[in-house]
Amino acid sequence: MLFIIGLGLGDERDITLRGLEAVKSCEKVYMESYTSLLSFGLDSHGLSNLEKLYGKTITLADREMVEEKAHHILEEARHSHVAFLVVGDPFGATTHTDLVVRAKKMGIHVQSVHNASVMNAIGICGLQLYRYGETVSIPFFTDSWRPDSFYEKIHSNRTMGLHTLCLLDIRVKEPTLESLARGRKTYEPPRYMTINTAIEQLLEVVQERQQPAYTEDTQCVGFARLGSDDQMIIAGTMKQLQMVDFGAPLHCLVITGNTHPLEEEMLEFYRCRT
Amino acid sequence: MLFIIGLGLGDERDITLRGLEAVKSCEKVYMESYTSLLSFGLDSHGLSNLEKLYGKTITLADREMVEEKAHHILEEARHSHVAFLVVGDPFGATTHTDLVVRAKKMGIHVQSVHNASVMNAIGICGLQLYRYGETVSIPFFTDSWRPDSFYEKIHSNRTMGLHTLCLLDIRVKEPTLESLARGRKTYEPPRYMTINTAIEQLLEVVQERQQPAYTEDTQCVGFARLGSDDQMIIAGTMKQLQMVDFGAPLHCLVITGNTHPLEEEMLEFYRCRT
Repeated sequence: MLFIIGLGLGDERDITLRGLEAVKSCEKVYMESYTSLLSFGLDSHGLSNLEKLYGKTITLADREMVEEKAHHILEEARHSHVAFLVVGDPFGATTHTDLVVRAKKMGIHVQSVHNASVMNAIGICGLQLYRYGETVSIPFFTDSWRPDSFYEKIHSNRTMGLHTLCLLDIRVKEPTLESLARGRKTYEPPRYMTINTAIEQLLEVVQERQQPAYTEDTQCVGFARLGSDDQMIIAGTMKQLQMVDFGAPLHCLVITGNTHPLEEEMLEFYRCRT
Repeated sequence: MLFIIGLGLGDERDITLRGLEAVKSCEKVYMESYTSLLSFGLDSHGLSNLEKLYGKTITLADREMVEEKAHHILEEARHSHVAFLVVGDPFGATTHTDLVVRAKKMGIHVQSVHNASVMNAIGICGLQLYRYGETVSIPFFTDSWRPDSFYEKIHSNRTMGLHTLCLLDIRVKEPTLESLARGRKTYEPPRYMTINTAIEQLLEVVQERQQPAYTEDTQCVGFARLGSDDQMIIAGTMKQLQMVDFGAPLHCLVITGNTHPLEEEMLEFYRCRT
């Protein structure tokens, strides 16, 4: 049996009772460390908090391990209870869907334990979840690679009056160019896109467009460390939010569409005071 | 202090440790009973399970009570810890946003505890959450009231290749016409829209359209009791799903847009076998 267990967004206390019961029943516990480890404040200290709570040793599984050793993990799950822990909800990221597909093809029983994810926790700012259009991802621009397919999606959403959730790039365990050339893996330090960088890129992309989908005066909401005790949520124009120091990762950004009065009232509590 | 605590989707075991800790610290515990009580299997038996777990008496709060007595609830929260329990995530429904706005205006400190909601738990079927467009609500048609504003939204979503989550109507504690006339309140029995009725209405609405946004052969996914031990998830055409008995509420329906290979692979496990 393979349990895919969502841990929620804050810390070890955000697991559900159902999830805790499942993980305690498992002989082996893996935790994905590639999509959003840091959101969980997981240095080695954080990990030992989880291990204490579960009474289990946790094996961190980065992308490489899940892709290369999935078969090994799944073989274990064929004969015993194996937990695969995921920050947020299990089906936020494609990689976990892939693991489930492989498990099911091997005839292994899979049970999912749901939890909050960024996709619904952003509801806290007052913008109604059913008024969102397609979610976009904003990748780090480099000198030679500046993909802007997110622009057309934001444009469509705003044309229909819908809000847009922008997920910001995370680069964890990226091999250095040098190491790729040498065939011996060393890794870049992890990078997490800030709201400031995201807005900079958004405004760069819009510069040469006719009838721009948004401007520096467009209302947005910035979220940092959503679901944690020290989360930060600020509503303001792109120009205003660009001046805010949101602190440690993870960040995400919502570009508003048309807002209703109740949405406005709620945003008022998060309004930028500069 | 007002705690708005999401209970998740299944049963009492879906609360988070953080949520349980908060509710145990409260002197008064309310639970919303108007948006999705039944999804929680909450007869009086279910409620006593919750009360046992929390070691607290729970006061059920229907829409009327929250609207009429919000001030009373909030006055209590000014001087003591009050929990307001919500099935799913706190910000799934507008009514809770309204309560939070009122609390904040009164200067009452509000803390939210997130959890899974339908909006992210549908990820389990393999259709990626970032590939969804605007969510629609399908209301019960009557002889004289057949609002079809959902159609244009589905049309937009499908034109862009996006999936559409259809939330199905719930009618709980609706005053009878007779009682409205008499000024003495009696209520209609609760009604929950089935996937079958939703598809019937969807197909009725599309009948006279040019270039219909979908047909009876459009691929959909039906969900019943999502997140519960006896959840049912079936993928098939509208015509196929219309023949399926999904059993007890709550139901919801996803109309697919363009699907990627990994999404298709995952849907295959849920495919209708008729």
